[in-house]
Amino acid sequence: MQIGSRIPRIRAAGTDGWEIVYRARALVAAGETVLNLTIGEPDRSTDPRVLEAMHQAALGGLTGYTFGPGLPELRRAIAARVTARTGVATRPENVIVTPGGQAALFAAHMVLLSKGDTGLYVTPHYPTYPTTILATGAQAEAVAAHAADGFQPTAAAILRAQARTGARSLLINTPNNPTGVVYAPETVAGIAGACREADLWLISDEVYDTQVWEGHHQSPRALPGMAERTVVIGSMSKSHAMTGSRLGWLVAPEEVVEAATVLATNTTYGVVPYIQKGALAALDLGAAFEEEIAAPFRRRRALVQQVVAGSRSVSTAPAAGAMYVMLDIRATGLSGEDFARRLIEEERIAVMPGESFGAAAAGHLRIALTLPDDQLATALTRLVAFAEALVPA
Amino acid sequence: MQIGSRIPRIRAAGTDGWEIVYRARALVAAGETVLNLTIGEPDRSTDPRVLEAMHQAALGGLTGYTFGPGLPELRRAIAARVTARTGVATRPENVIVTPGGQAALFAAHMVLLSKGDTGLYVTPHYPTYPTTILATGAQAEAVAAHAADGFQPTAAAILRAQARTGARSLLINTPNNPTGVVYAPETVAGIAGACREADLWLISDEVYDTQVWEGHHQSPRALPGMAERTVVIGSMSKSHAMTGSRLGWLVAPEEVVEAATVLATNTTYGVVPYIQKGALAALDLGAAFEEEIAAPFRRRRALVQQVVAGSRSVSTAPAAGAMYVMLDIRATGLSGEDFARRLIEEERIAVMPGESFGAAAAGHLRIALTLPDDQLATALTRLVAFAEALVPA
Repeated sequence: MQIGSRIPRIRAAGTDGWEIVYRARALVAAGETVLNLTIGEPDRSTDPRVLEAMHQAALGGLTGYTFGPGLPELRRAIAARVTARTGVATRPENVIVTPGGQAALFAAHMVLLSKGDTGLYVTPHYPTYPTTILATGAQAEAVAAHAADGFQPTAAAILRAQARTGARSLLINTPNNPTGVVYAPETVAGIAGACREADLWLISDEVYDTQVWEGHHQSPRALPGMAERTVVIGSMSKSHAMTGSRLGWLVAPEEVVEAATVLATNTTYGVVPYIQKGALAALDLGAAFEEEIAAPFRRRRALVQQVVAGSRSVSTAPAAGAMYVMLDIRATGLSGEDFARRLIEEERIAVMPGESFGAAAAGHLRIALTLPDDQLATALTRLVAFAEALVPA
Repeated sequence: MQIGSRIPRIRAAGTDGWEIVYRARALVAAGETVLNLTIGEPDRSTDPRVLEAMHQAALGGLTGYTFGPGLPELRRAIAARVTARTGVATRPENVIVTPGGQAALFAAHMVLLSKGDTGLYVTPHYPTYPTTILATGAQAEAVAAHAADGFQPTAAAILRAQARTGARSLLINTPNNPTGVVYAPETVAGIAGACREADLWLISDEVYDTQVWEGHHQSPRALPGMAERTVVIGSMSKSHAMTGSRLGWLVAPEEVVEAATVLATNTTYGVVPYIQKGALAALDLGAAFEEEIAAPFRRRRALVQQVVAGSRSVSTAPAAGAMYVMLDIRATGLSGEDFARRLIEEERIAVMPGESFGAAAAGHLRIALTLPDDQLATALTRLVAFAEALVPA
């Protein structure tokens, strides 16, 4: 019996970028110690206050189906938060709660694209971007943001890609995984202008919006003429250390929310109601809690910059946000993949090769800021020494 | 800005069958009392022992991402349960945990069908069956099971539909929602034979497999040559009163499980780990707990049969399982829709018209066994009196 063509198509397009992750896992299983800088997840569990709110809601009987776009009180809280953070008047009717940010990404493309349409995404990219678009039956085309431009995508590159493919949507991510870059106001303005000019839907993944170390996060939905063509992806995973609870959302024009609700009936059938109550409790903890979650990443990013400073062989891409720093190791003459392979074999340090996130990140390494400070410092110091030894004096 | 064609296509195909549900909701909101027999969900909350297991797992730190097909211990438990219940040797590698049975239905069709392929489904049907198939980009075609055949589908009808459409899959459901029918061994054998003959994947929705009042549940996967072409949908929702927790699974050939895991990475990104631990705890409560959950439906089904017995105007379809009874009201001369409309306006009793589940259930009403016994008895007694008054003496 043959399965359909969808999954083979996804497999063929997927990056083969998990080699180092698997190798690290195998080494640990064999009893070795590995300093693992590949983990894209906060190094703390979900707060007990949040878990207690979930448990009380469940014990109170909130264990049945929740149809539709989410609990009204959670939609209200998300709408109020988006309004406060972006200045764009946002109503509960603009919000649908989804089982995680990945489900929101998938739903956005399922709703906006017809089969055979093309969706654009900016690369370097989170690995599921092209495959999520392919999973919907659409075509996926990359728009490269280059290291020489500080990984900021340009309007010209978007317009060229749109003209070439007839694309109907563009997927962006700021603050960015994997680069750690925050799009500058002029970058966001350029993206918005390109979307208006080429009549593109903009799908804006803003799940790292509480993790900004320099400058500020500009949501493109707040720019003129953009609210009606922008779908924002949000999530509790990174901002509130709730990765496993699978709680995300779309903020979008009402018509898109209504369509995504129809889709939800046929795919996920609602989001666990007591987890929705937990998310509400987490949002109620306010900005101080978000700062508390973000603080280790802010501190560790500074630590990485300090260790790297003055190196001949390693420099950082502009590391302004998110829980990652991209290291430029092109001065060593090695590809990111070769560097990462040698680093795990010779130093037992696991990093993601830039190439895992697309060719635009070749010659780079992604460092996740999710190890305790002392281990991160040790790993980075050894990584830099390893790189220095590769460069002729 | 225009959304894509997918959701409009789903909307156009969806049954418009929720009129009575909405009307009941509006009446209740206006302060009226409605006896609501439309609710397809156990009338009890999730057991506190299950909730406690979840909470302890979460407090213990199990709040991070769970990649892949599910926690090994839950996959083992599901595999062992399926092996014990069906006699088919089933390994953990044959199981993927999904966020609910609906997600499993969607995933099965996403994996098995290519775009443009046709998926068959038996009607009368659960309302999301055709729309779930359409959501994947495939075509959906109905195979009617007729009241005259006790709503048992025939191999001949399946083979005719396959020959006409070139379909690659067939979706069945036994014990059945909406009819309350359990497929007879010869029905299941006929279905299996048709699938082998026409080289069809069989997607077998068995979420009511613990609710059988007469005869026994025969999983088609247990028949010769079927394990390699059958994908079984399972869920904790009905068997363990966990509807809101969104915990289901697929049991399938390993290749299908691996493909569904790739799909999950691009759609849902795993299932909440502490809920998986809750499901494990619920399964550990064993058969006695499943009986405890099923007992009210068994009792109420007998109650409905007792009230209806001897009526000139109302009879029951063979009500052998699941938490529903289908009433045949064709003797009244009314359609199911007209009967249901008059019943809510004149008697404040809400029932689902058979037509909501496809034309094959015309002239019928679906009664959910989810009200307390006394309210169910009152509602049924009044319903039968209402029907009797429609029939000339």
